[in-house]
Amino acid sequence: MLSKKYSKVAGQSSVIRQIFEYGKKRAEVVGADNIFDFSIGNPSVPAPGSVNETAIRIMNENDPCFVHGYPSAIGYDDTRESIAGNLNRRYGMNYHKNNIFMTNGAAAAISLCFRTVTDYGVGDEIIVIAPYFPEYKCFIEGAGVKCVESQADTKDFQIDFDDLSSKINEHTRAVIINSPNNPTGACYSEDTIKKLASVLEEASNKYKRAIYIISDEPYREIVFDGFNIPYVPKYYKNTLVCYSYSKSLSLPGERIGYIAFTDDADDSDILLGTIGAVAREISYVGVPSLFQMVVRDCVDELADISIYETNKNLIYNALKDIGYSVVEPKGTFYIFPKCLEDDASSFCEKAKEYDLLIVPSDSFSIKGYFRLSYCVPTSRVERAIPLFERLYKDYN
Amino acid sequence: MLSKKYSKVAGQSSVIRQIFEYGKKRAEVVGADNIFDFSIGNPSVPAPGSVNETAIRIMNENDPCFVHGYPSAIGYDDTRESIAGNLNRRYGMNYHKNNIFMTNGAAAAISLCFRTVTDYGVGDEIIVIAPYFPEYKCFIEGAGVKCVESQADTKDFQIDFDDLSSKINEHTRAVIINSPNNPTGACYSEDTIKKLASVLEEASNKYKRAIYIISDEPYREIVFDGFNIPYVPKYYKNTLVCYSYSKSLSLPGERIGYIAFTDDADDSDILLGTIGAVAREISYVGVPSLFQMVVRDCVDELADISIYETNKNLIYNALKDIGYSVVEPKGTFYIFPKCLEDDASSFCEKAKEYDLLIVPSDSFSIKGYFRLSYCVPTSRVERAIPLFERLYKDYN
Repeated sequence: MLSKKYSKVAGQSSVIRQIFEYGKKRAEVVGADNIFDFSIGNPSVPAPGSVNETAIRIMNENDPCFVHGYPSAIGYDDTRESIAGNLNRRYGMNYHKNNIFMTNGAAAAISLCFRTVTDYGVGDEIIVIAPYFPEYKCFIEGAGVKCVESQADTKDFQIDFDDLSSKINEHTRAVIINSPNNPTGACYSEDTIKKLASVLEEASNKYKRAIYIISDEPYREIVFDGFNIPYVPKYYKNTLVCYSYSKSLSLPGERIGYIAFTDDADDSDILLGTIGAVAREISYVGVPSLFQMVVRDCVDELADISIYETNKNLIYNALKDIGYSVVEPKGTFYIFPKCLEDDASSFCEKAKEYDLLIVPSDSFSIKGYFRLSYCVPTSRVERAIPLFERLYKDYN
Repeated sequence: MLSKKYSKVAGQSSVIRQIFEYGKKRAEVVGADNIFDFSIGNPSVPAPGSVNETAIRIMNENDPCFVHGYPSAIGYDDTRESIAGNLNRRYGMNYHKNNIFMTNGAAAAISLCFRTVTDYGVGDEIIVIAPYFPEYKCFIEGAGVKCVESQADTKDFQIDFDDLSSKINEHTRAVIINSPNNPTGACYSEDTIKKLASVLEEASNKYKRAIYIISDEPYREIVFDGFNIPYVPKYYKNTLVCYSYSKSLSLPGERIGYIAFTDDADDSDILLGTIGAVAREISYVGVPSLFQMVVRDCVDELADISIYETNKNLIYNALKDIGYSVVEPKGTFYIFPKCLEDDASSFCEKAKEYDLLIVPSDSFSIKGYFRLSYCVPTSRVERAIPLFERLYKDYN
């Protein structure tokens, strides 16, 4: 007899994963070249050459007992110093190593943050801005906390502050934001961040306890037209930044990221230790050793992510010209157009007839849109455009 | 305001870690060569040469998008097939890839198993055999489950079945065993495993639900005098094996291991999916990609662990000859002698006067013993022996 809770959802995979698996099967029938799989957000550009060179150099030059040895749970000192230095150079911050807790990617970072600022089963709430990455809800509810949705303004997918304010109460412990945003590609403007900071400051004062911003930023570097994405801790002291090298270094499979906070955050003296206590309980013993050293040495590198902007321009202009209703993405490798019928699942099924694999927006807690991931070769985007045109004609 | 629960224990490190940190500071005073740090169980032998060669070959021969790409949460098919094959060859089993769930080391494997067979806050219990690895309790309580201790027979640190039987009731969901054992070095005999299987079969029948054995086996290969350690699933179908390559491949920092179960386990058809549901909730997105491939190709390799037996023979014979009361370890790189006074902490403080750093047994939920980790150079063990002799004389 297994856990009632977990066995009930045993083997339930996400809709995204189901579409991805369908694509692999379908490829066997029509050939991989004829499948337009825009379902999964898996970086399509290689890691910078220096990443493998660095990994090989570290293995060749050091004692294997050191290279593959236990790191402490918070991460190597020199890796954390290196990351702090990178952030200080880029954003004029004053981070030091004890502002950084290494994590197994952004997913672990987010999960640790949720548990760091809440208690299990006491009625705590965390606010998510819909549409949002579906795992947030899973992580929040797993922490014994209520996931409260606030709908973004669909005009530009910035925060709808009237709606957000109505969701904040004495149980609110944090708001998680994700800019650049999965699934919409929206980037929060400086105005949005300033407004958010002011709303949360006021609410923190009112309820006499800090409401944290958990800023999930794996797409931070993937911004278009030179958009200057605000660095949230500069605007709000109680910010926990969750980062991953999955996109900037194209290392999603190595599971490496961090949580960063500033010294002026409330309880900053016990924050690192509190995160560590959470990590210990869910058995995050440490972040993989070799790739901590790689990140230490490659912290200023960036994968060639320019293809994402090329693809965005192609697909955005094409969809708009065809007649789709779509907000131009400011970052990420996603675009989030309106479906041509109310039922997004039905629309995405219809798209399958052209071997266009896209994700219905219901997974992201909003109706009537689809997510298209353009982290694919540019030629794949080009060849898909006539298919989106035929799909459009079917509806018009 | 942070989590009440976690902030209360913020930065609390284990006694083992405290001793280790003391050792690093003390080394600055007296020199690293003059510190006899037997506190931490960090493998002291290098990974087999083929590990780095394989990692480098994989990086050189494959597309980096593949090498560092997202694995699925359960792990790569070919890695799981490779592990199944290795176990089938060694133990005459019939594992296939869907009996294997890749994990971030044994710690994650254990944590996932605890949650897979219990529900939060409903009164479920898991039995541990004391002395035991202190993290078990942390992981069990973190899952909202009661940690019930059964004391081993201190004559040889095998299970005391009278005591164990008295701890089993309708709330018991699993018994976790760890053979070869940290901290005692005991290995369970075939008799012990047979008896355990029979006790748990009877109890499962009585309470009409499976009681699982969670078999934590990171030290499986480190056995002495050719001791033949029973493969638990051959004796009890409801066994979840938790394994790590931290010792056999000396890769503790890369965090790679697995959970294995057989097709004849109860609910085996939903076990993999249920483990996956737990993993998803605590944000274990996947096990590091490159080292999954390394394990796939190096699954039959073994680090040169013979030094541990050399060291065991040295320290065991010396301590016995000096006059310490000690059970001979059958495996691991630990030995667990009796202290020379009742208060283990006070004894270990006294040992510090000789710069002997050993761990008081209270951490392992038994009084009056100390744990000595001999995963250190043999010369270090040799040089420590006269110090243990002087310590003995202080008490006699």
